[in-house]
Amino acid sequence: MTGDREAPRTGLWLVGARGSVATTVMVGTAALRAGLTRTTGLVAELPELAGTGLPEVADLVVGGHDLGTAPLVKRAESLGEGGVLPMRLVPLVHDELEAAEQRLRPGYDAASGEPQGEALARLQGDLESFRDEHGLVRVVVVDVASTEPPVDAAALGDPHSALNDLDTLDAALAAGESPLPASSLYALAAYRAGCAYVSFTPSPGPRLPALEQAAERAGVPWAGSDGKTGETLVKSALAPMFATRALQVRSWASYNMLGGGDGATLADPAAAASKTASKSAGLEAIVGHPVDGPMHIDHVPDLGDWKTAMDHISFEGFLGVRMTMQFTWSGCDSALAAPLVIDLARLIARAHEAGRVGAQSAFGFFFKDPAGTDEHRLSAQWDALVAWCSEL
Amino acid sequence: MTGDREAPRTGLWLVGARGSVATTVMVGTAALRAGLTRTTGLVAELPELAGTGLPEVADLVVGGHDLGTAPLVKRAESLGEGGVLPMRLVPLVHDELEAAEQRLRPGYDAASGEPQGEALARLQGDLESFRDEHGLVRVVVVDVASTEPPVDAAALGDPHSALNDLDTLDAALAAGESPLPASSLYALAAYRAGCAYVSFTPSPGPRLPALEQAAERAGVPWAGSDGKTGETLVKSALAPMFATRALQVRSWASYNMLGGGDGATLADPAAAASKTASKSAGLEAIVGHPVDGPMHIDHVPDLGDWKTAMDHISFEGFLGVRMTMQFTWSGCDSALAAPLVIDLARLIARAHEAGRVGAQSAFGFFFKDPAGTDEHRLSAQWDALVAWCSEL
Amino acid sequence: MTGDREAPRTGLWLVGARGSVATTVMVGTAALRAGLTRTTGLVAELPELAGTGLPEVADLVVGGHDLGTAPLVKRAESLGEGGVLPMRLVPLVHDELEAAEQRLRPGYDAASGEPQGEALARLQGDLESFRDEHGLVRVVVVDVASTEPPVDAAALGDPHSALNDLDTLDAALAAGESPLPASSLYALAAYRAGCAYVSFTPSPGPRLPALEQAAERAGVPWAGSDGKTGETLVKSALAPMFATRALQVRSWASYNMLGGGDGATLADPAAAASKTASKSAGLEAIVGHPVDGPMHIDHVPDLGDWKTAMDHISFEGFLGVRMTMQFTWSGCDSALAAPLVIDLARLIARAHEAGRVGAQSAFGFFFKDPAGTDEHRLSAQWDALVAWCSEL
Amino acid sequence: MTGDREAPRTGLWLVGARGSVATTVMVGTAALRAGLTRTTGLVAELPELAGTGLPEVADLVVGGHDLGTAPLVKRAESLGEGGVLPMRLVPLVHDELEAAEQRLRPGYDAASGEPQGEALARLQGDLESFRDEHGLVRVVVVDVASTEPPVDAAALGDPHSALNDLDTLDAALAAGESPLPASSLYALAAYRAGCAYVSFTPSPGPRLPALEQAAERAGVPWAGSDGKTGETLVKSALAPMFATRALQVRSWASYNMLGGGDGATLADPAAAASKTASKSAGLEAIVGHPVDGPMHIDHVPDLGDWKTAMDHISFEGFLGVRMTMQFTWSGCDSALAAPLVIDLARLIARAHEAGRVGAQSAFGFFFKDPAGTDEHRLSAQWDALVAWCSEL
Ligand SMILES: NC(=O)c1ccc[n+]([C@@H]2O[C@H](COP(=O)([O-])OP(=O)(O)OC[C@H]3O[C@@H](n4cnc5c(N)ncnc54)[C@H](O)[C@@H]3O)[C@@H](O)[C@H]2O)c1
Ligand SMILES: NC(=O)c1ccc[n+]([C@@H]2O[C@H](COP(=O)([O-])OP(=O)(O)OC[C@H]3O[C@@H](n4cnc5c(N)ncnc54)[C@H](O)[C@@H]3O)[C@@H](O)[C@H]2O)c1
Ligand SMILES: NC(=O)c1ccc[n+]([C@@H]2O[C@H](COP(=O)([O-])OP(=O)(O)OC[C@H]3O[C@@H](n4cnc5c(N)ncnc54)[C@H](O)[C@@H]3O)[C@@H](O)[C@H]2O)c1
Ligand SMILES: NC(=O)c1ccc[n+]([C@@H]2O[C@H](COP(=O)([O-])OP(=O)(O)OC[C@H]3O[C@@H](n4cnc5c(N)ncnc54)[C@H](O)[C@@H]3O)[C@@H](O)[C@H]2O)c1
Ligand code: NA
Ligand code: NA
Repeated sequence: MTGDREAPRTGLWLVGARGSVATTVMVGTAALRAGLTRTTGLVAELPELAGTGLPEVADLVVGGHDLGTAPLVKRAESLGEGGVLPMRLVPLVHDELEAAEQRLRPGYDAASGEPQGEALARLQGDLESFRDEHGLVRVVVVDVASTEPPVDAAALGDPHSALNDLDTLDAALAAGESPLPASSLYALAAYRAGCAYVSFTPSPGPRLPALEQAAERAGVPWAGSDGKTGETLVKSALAPMFATRALQVRSWASYNMLGGGDGATLADPAAAASKTASKSAGLEAIVGHPVDGPMHIDHVPDLGDWKTAMDHISFEGFLGVRMTMQFTWSGCDSALAAPLVIDLARLIARAHEAGRVGAQSAFGFFFKDPAGTDEHRLSAQWDALVAWCSEL
Repeated sequence: MTGDREAPRTGLWLVGARGSVATTVMVGTAALRAGLTRTTGLVAELPELAGTGLPEVADLVVGGHDLGTAPLVKRAESLGEGGVLPMRLVPLVHDELEAAEQRLRPGYDAASGEPQGEALARLQGDLESFRDEHGLVRVVVVDVASTEPPVDAAALGDPHSALNDLDTLDAALAAGESPLPASSLYALAAYRAGCAYVSFTPSPGPRLPALEQAAERAGVPWAGSDGKTGETLVKSALAPMFATRALQVRSWASYNMLGGGDGATLADPAAAASKTASKSAGLEAIVGHPVDGPMHIDHVPDLGDWKTAMDHISFEGFLGVRMTMQFTWSGCDSALAAPLVIDLARLIARAHEAGRVGAQSAFGFFFKDPAGTDEHRLSAQWDALVAWCSEL
Repeated sequence: MTGDREAPRTGLWLVGARGSVATTVMVGTAALRAGLTRTTGLVAELPELAGTGLPEVADLVVGGHDLGTAPLVKRAESLGEGGVLPMRLVPLVHDELEAAEQRLRPGYDAASGEPQGEALARLQGDLESFRDEHGLVRVVVVDVASTEPPVDAAALGDPHSALNDLDTLDAALAAGESPLPASSLYALAAYRAGCAYVSFTPSPGPRLPALEQAAERAGVPWAGSDGKTGETLVKSALAPMFATRALQVRSWASYNMLGGGDGATLADPAAAASKTASKSAGLEAIVGHPVDGPMHIDHVPDLGDWKTAMDHISFEGFLGVRMTMQFTWSGCDSALAAPLVIDLARLIARAHEAGRVGAQSAFGFFFKDPAGTDEHRLSAQWDALVAWCSEL
Repeated sequence: MTGDREAPRTGLWLVGARGSVATTVMVGTAALRAGLTRTTGLVAELPELAGTGLPEVADLVVGGHDLGTAPLVKRAESLGEGGVLPMRLVPLVHDELEAAEQRLRPGYDAASGEPQGEALARLQGDLESFRDEHGLVRVVVVDVASTEPPVDAAALGDPHSALNDLDTLDAALAAGESPLPASSLYALAAYRAGCAYVSFTPSPGPRLPALEQAAERAGVPWAGSDGKTGETLVKSALAPMFATRALQVRSWASYNMLGGGDGATLADPAAAASKTASKSAGLEAIVGHPVDGPMHIDHVPDLGDWKTAMDHISFEGFLGVRMTMQFTWSGCDSALAAPLVIDLARLIARAHEAGRVGAQSAFGFFFKDPAGTDEHRLSAQWDALVAWCSEL
């Protein structure tokens, strides 16, 4: 009986815990636990991944960091009004949200002036307390906070900078400096607390060389970056069709409209730069040559979480004939992202349990900018994921 | 040196040799031989299939059957006017087209009353003469004639009918009966002449049980059916995305507009029935359940060979949220089909050379209704094709 | 003060009163009266039509006929679940819906065998009682019931049939015959009760010659047919662009998907015939020549009231150059129809008050198949409507 | 008989005479004169504008200014290859193009340092010589040169600047200064030569106050700006539909892709600023409030003259329900523009003949940014144009 068993419980710690994606994760795990919804959207529930020994959704305990203080119940209601989740669910999971509310802690705000060495200790402590208080067998951290701008190219270019060398970084932190983007500080705190880490955003997070070293030394697995939930997902399914049919993609225009919190963040060109870089990487890798064409991400508040992408592809076939394909994707971003966050939490927890360390390239299926691999073709990524699971 | 060598030449016999696809094949092989065009669209020229020992395009000799008498040069010119091929190519390949014209023979017209036993001998003789006269190492037959209606369900249902048993069929032909659809008579003639056969149309052709037996007894390979060049191609690339992301496809509406000869044929509901059956098969196989939604193929003469497909997909994600995707495919049908016909001719010739017999399920990549397999996912079909080539 | 005034009240009698459109009308008028919503979608509230002396929305009393018995509150809830109206409104207008429920009467079911003469008296009586009981200054009847098939061409072709001559019709009814489609019987009942009539459906209703005579003799105005709310609306705005730019429309493909009650009705080819005829009329009239291209209305239950239309237009410009335009319309049918029903009720009531008799051709703006005019261009229809109002 | 008559001939002087639009105008007028093509796309040939006394197309003589030297025949051939005009026409109008080539003169290049006073005299002289040499009854100038950036806001803001006051301007020119954008210098030259002027581009041209005074003093008519041939055309047909149906447009995203010379020019953000300003003006005027949503013009060389616009409209209906419409316009820019240039030449010539002076607001039908009027609704513009013609 589920009620009686003493299954080991796993902690899912969300950075950006009051955001749309995070709130949808919390409503969703609660609804799944209560049998109020189906497993649609949950990749890890597909037969191909079954029997992999992943922690059950019902055995996840959710906590997290955020800067804001908007109550989770209010966030859930406004997601209900926006059609991101069914309004009728909100009262049914009210108590679970209230309980989760108690497990949220103040995050790290780069603008606050808090020295990163102190913040690191604080964040690490939050994770350890979470694990201890709830008797969790392990905790995984998933970053679903607002997208940050890319890090300074100059700092990245210097091999001796704190971004590129862990010892330099530790010395800098000890000296009261604050060299890291917030996302990377969260990753470091996770590693120091012995937690696996997933970057669902295009923020630098675990991708800095110093951070890669930190994960290695801590002996924990990590995965990223930037959840593949919309236009890029479609691209990674469609582009191989052109490639294997020897059709030459001549231009691919990508127009994205988005409201919501994420849309507001990406209205800032600096933040959008991370996202467009992450979105562009795959196409060239798949078709084998650079492809011309604009890529825009526009903030259209009216659309809320309903991301609409309109793409126009021009391609050439036999004897030089030009043809076109267009598509419009109208997806609910958080409803697409949330189940993947749950999937990734379960998978990275299993990877941790199985002793895997460093970038989990087999999780590229979930990401726009997959760490540890150049494979962007969706079906090949799927095959790699299924193989990873079957080898456990 | 290519100029001097005495490479063995392979015959490519086209049923429907004056049609749009066939004419594009002839212009294309001539243009490739003369170095007038690139290999865009030719799957067999991709690195993954290289070194497989396929006959070179330059070593193909094209002939064929048709009912009509419209000169090939005129057909090529009208394809040039319709934008299916570059008008400038037509004068440059004029002499090759005139030469091919000499290699065309009158086909079999079911409405003519010609007894099928006699027609069989005549068609078989055409193939043997073609091989002998041109010193061809082997001949492959590809059906690119007008789509036929499905065969009578009652006849198919009777295990003792001529459609289902080769001995019964031979007896019927000997008795002066004409039980076969024309496409199957062509396939039988191919087998009796020792030729491999490819069905690029949804016509019954090689798919009748009696015909499967005939190929087996003749020891030749065959492949089919119905070239996958447009909407179904896109479906087979996109539908696995929904499946592996655990997104539930709720409806998929498929609207196709087509002019040209094929469009005119499919304006007849009986002929269209073959095509819509062939187009529908894959989606259910990929997503694992029947999918609601209309499928229309409409004759819009104005569009000529430019097939336009407009699809609307409604799907459900996490927590029951409904989302949509639409696409418009505007492809030049014959420009998409012709290179695949060339690919298939080379591949089936190689299969014949390698001693393969019966349905070549590894060629499913090319077909809407792949024989010998239920695999409809484009990338899995690609993997199977690459594997087949690497095992040769 | 609105509360104190004794404004004359007007009755709005809906045929098909439990349908999606009717229920949305009832929720909408209640919400407007209570100040719970804005006037978006209400044409008669635009400045150009202001000061015309139309009855106020707050002064409408709604009743109606239907065959079914599903409670209005339940219908409203299911519209709320389908996103046709905001769920939060339903409890707020609950009492108004309960009150309207009391004003509904059993309609006329052609399959019931009830002689039409008897039914006529019954329906007429319902209208008269409604007017008397509620002290209404006048009652207008709007048909929003399920679409009927077209009437028999043979009967329509005979000038002496009951459909074509009022005296013959009256004699037939007196003789116990039942020659009319239900929609026309409702119109006749309206006229006999001294009520104006609007046909919002493509059903025959008021369009039969005998019915035109009946309206004339009764001295009442009527308008129709078939509310223009989606693809046809867009056509009537776009097609004049091609015409006045001297661009030749070569083909116009119209693909419609629809669920809901209306979608289920139109899944029957006989009923759909009325609709496709009504939808096709305008384009030819606007561009001045027949236009090739398929028109389909497909029942896709999954889409509910969310009608999706995908159109593909091919046109020719200077020097014969071919170009294309496509559009996708994703509209909520009942949300588009309901405010027009309210507009029409107010306008036809005003026409009645002003002594207008017969077909109101100036209301063509609202209809796919406008009575009394061949003007299908939306902007010209708008100008006619504004002119009509300003002449009152 | 047309052959014998001595009809007065009108000069059409094109600024940007070697561009795509200009070349298409030249091929088109030659083809029309020779009876090689139909009048599709020519608004002035519609019955509503007939009998207006416009000069016949056959009586137009074309000349012009350009900076480049690419031969017209070569330009026509490359337009033929790009599908902008039928390749078969090019040899048939070869002699006419050669003749027109002789009538082209070097234009004014702002980067050349030529003092504008001198350039003005030179350009004016070119126009007068053209009129005299060919015995033209009058000459009209149409600007179809590359789009210029907007003029400096500071200069425009100063009421005493040369841009705002004709006397100041004349004094500046006399003093050897060069205060004008090239497009305005062309307009001034036209006025000084007694020619009517049409600005088919978004360049400042005749829109500067000093230029308005110059036209007034010269007693000539002018019209502009920026030919309305694609997305903006569709907007001006569609937006009134939302307005008159009381549907609230919430966002309208406009994505434009374009190659060709115009696309290359607009890849420069400064030049694009003129165009996006011109494109945005109308929507707000039509719906009566600002509308959110991105507008991009992207340079996609691959598409050549085939401008593709993808628009996404979100709107609100009754009870706050949100709906969407999308369209894709795939038009051949020069094929859409050229006939309008011919129309405008004939209309402005007639206006000149009829003694009209200043901005011809009745020609707003043709323009994105109509001078002399705020009317952007296409059908109202059409009505105004028809009325203007009927009043002549
Ligand atoms: N939804 C998708 O489909 C999708 C796909 C890929 C990536 N993502 C990424 O996921 C992230 C979350 O998206 P969302 O729609 O939930 O955004 P959101 O704006 O609704 O939520 C972001 C949350 O992060 C919090 N936050 C900001 N800075 C923080 C900090 N320093 N520490 C802790 N919390 C912080 C904010 O207060 C907010 O609550 C974004 O980076 C987005 O780009 C989303
Ligand atoms: N073009 C594509 O993308 C594509 C894709 C899949 C399948 N197909 C199939 O390929 C076939 C050819 O297409 P097409 O566009 O060239 O059509 P088409 O109408 O241009 O050509 C068909 C030719 O077949 C000939 N023909 C008819 N009956 C015959 C008979 N009994 N014997 C010999 N010849 C006969 C006709 O005379 C004609 O020349 C069609 O069946 C089509 O469905 C085409
Ligand atoms: N919604 C739109 O945008 C739109 C536009 C144009 C026309 N219309 C027409 O409006 C009508 C109503 O559409 P809907 O979506 O509300 O359909 P619906 O199926 O939801 O409602 C129709 C109602 O009519 C009732 N009915 C059927 N036969 C009747 C009879 N003989 N007497 C009385 N009632 C009867 C049914 O019981 C049902 O309650 C349809 O004919 C539709 O074609 C709708
Ligand atoms: N094609 C359309 O649908 C359309 C619609 C509206 C406006 N327009 C405008 O029409 C203009 C022409 O478009 P196009 O496609 O022909 O462009 P194009 O680039 O092919 O041609 C522009 C021509 O102008 C010439 N030119 C540049 N500067 C000049 C100068 N100072 N004096 C004389 N000539 C000069 C160039 O050499 C070139 O030959 C553009 O400004 C465009 O924005 C076009
Ligand atoms: Na199969
Ligand atoms: Na009419």
